[in-house]
Amino acid sequence: MPLTPPTVLVIAGNDPSGGAGIAADIQAVTAAGAHPAPVITALTVQDTVNASAVEPAPPELVAAQAAAVMADIPVAAVKIGLLATAGIARAVAELLAQHPDVPVVLDPVLVAAGGARLAEDELVDVVLERLCPLTTLLTPNALEIRRLAPAGNSTAERTATLLDAGCDWVLAKGGDETDQGAEVVNTLYGAGAPQVFRWPRLEGSFHGSGCTLASACAARIALGEPVDTAVARAQALVHGWLERAFRPGRGQLVPLRRPR
Amino acid sequence: MPLTPPTVLVIAGNDPSGGAGIAADIQAVTAAGAHPAPVITALTVQDTVNASAVEPAPPELVAAQAAAVMADIPVAAVKIGLLATAGIARAVAELLAQHPDVPVVLDPVLVAAGGARLAEDELVDVVLERLCPLTTLLTPNALEIRRLAPAGNSTAERTATLLDAGCDWVLAKGGDETDQGAEVVNTLYGAGAPQVFRWPRLEGSFHGSGCTLASACAARIALGEPVDTAVARAQALVHGWLERAFRPGRGQLVPLRRPR
Repeated sequence: MPLTPPTVLVIAGNDPSGGAGIAADIQAVTAAGAHPAPVITALTVQDTVNASAVEPAPPELVAAQAAAVMADIPVAAVKIGLLATAGIARAVAELLAQHPDVPVVLDPVLVAAGGARLAEDELVDVVLERLCPLTTLLTPNALEIRRLAPAGNSTAERTATLLDAGCDWVLAKGGDETDQGAEVVNTLYGAGAPQVFRWPRLEGSFHGSGCTLASACAARIALGEPVDTAVARAQALVHGWLERAFRPGRGQLVPLRRPR
Repeated sequence: MPLTPPTVLVIAGNDPSGGAGIAADIQAVTAAGAHPAPVITALTVQDTVNASAVEPAPPELVAAQAAAVMADIPVAAVKIGLLATAGIARAVAELLAQHPDVPVVLDPVLVAAGGARLAEDELVDVVLERLCPLTTLLTPNALEIRRLAPAGNSTAERTATLLDAGCDWVLAKGGDETDQGAEVVNTLYGAGAPQVFRWPRLEGSFHGSGCTLASACAARIALGEPVDTAVARAQALVHGWLERAFRPGRGQLVPLRRPR
């Protein structure tokens, strides 16, 4: 009997294009070496260009899906993507508070890559007040950092607010900051001095790169790597998948989330 | 730029254990060499033992997800799993009738592995009357063959009914017929004489093996293989994934759907 891969409970919306959302999570967790257990928060109508509808599930149905998994399978890490409503976020926080030892990677999905707003304002409050205290690793992009911590004057100041809210680590992603020029600079804040990761900026625009990175981080944490090691390893995996990205439709590129 | 994998539109329910349903489809399509575009028909509350709830999506939301993909991405094959309601089945049939050249693999999911009934009787009628005429390859197990064609006296007779209903090919799967002893015998009916495939019966009970095989068939058809070649190749892939299966929870084994 082969080794049993550790299970990552993935809480996210479905993107029918297969570029982002639960498909990205399932592929990334699998390719990074773990078993994905998918809990769906919302169905979206979406293609590789943008999202046109978001239909959230009832919070109790999201909680029931996750509770069924957690009662049956030892969950080694949780990855949270689109929560869609404050009610779902509260239901998820309530469940996770009963499992304080399970590491949580929270990708605070607030807008779709095409710009469509995916989250109501109340959700931002629940993320800060209820989910950040349960979060091991938060993975916001620059837009999300500004929406979660609007008062700060710099990324470092805003990130400090998110660490104060209770996140153990914050990976501030620079992929959408195109004034960084030929590099993408991601900075990991948490224990010790910030760790800076620099990656060659790839041409084109990618659908689902955020979901992909957060899921790869969760998988590596589930495999037992320390958070900073997992973050470094996950970025290397994702960079490889982005280098091999393809364009299935008229819109953005999709990372090829497969072992080489 | 690497080759673009062909897209398989996958229409199925979500199983939060990650053993069956859309996660099985996404992993199997990916590992078999294609890009999965997932359309969700229903959320289920389910673990590796059995399903306790099925919450179907509104038919128009299922159709909208699929239509968004088909307007954006050239779809090379469609794989249909759990349809859950007659309304969803009718909506899917209506959409697919507009794309008569796209091959369709239909896995007629009617009961969960643990025995929970996943389909109402009216759905069986819609499958026979509306979907079979659009189906390239039907992949029923022995229970499903008996439910779809109760009048026949043998698998061959029952399969003839399903070919008459309009399916081009029927792969009658023997995995659940334990009186076959040490072998699993699958038989492909369609053009020419039936083709018999024999596989060593593996120990244990598997969650999601049906979804996995149908998705692998769809991926190989999407890659351009003739149906009988695709069916042979998909079985070989799935047999390898079943040999490496693992037990994430208290219940059934889950195939390790990853390239070696």
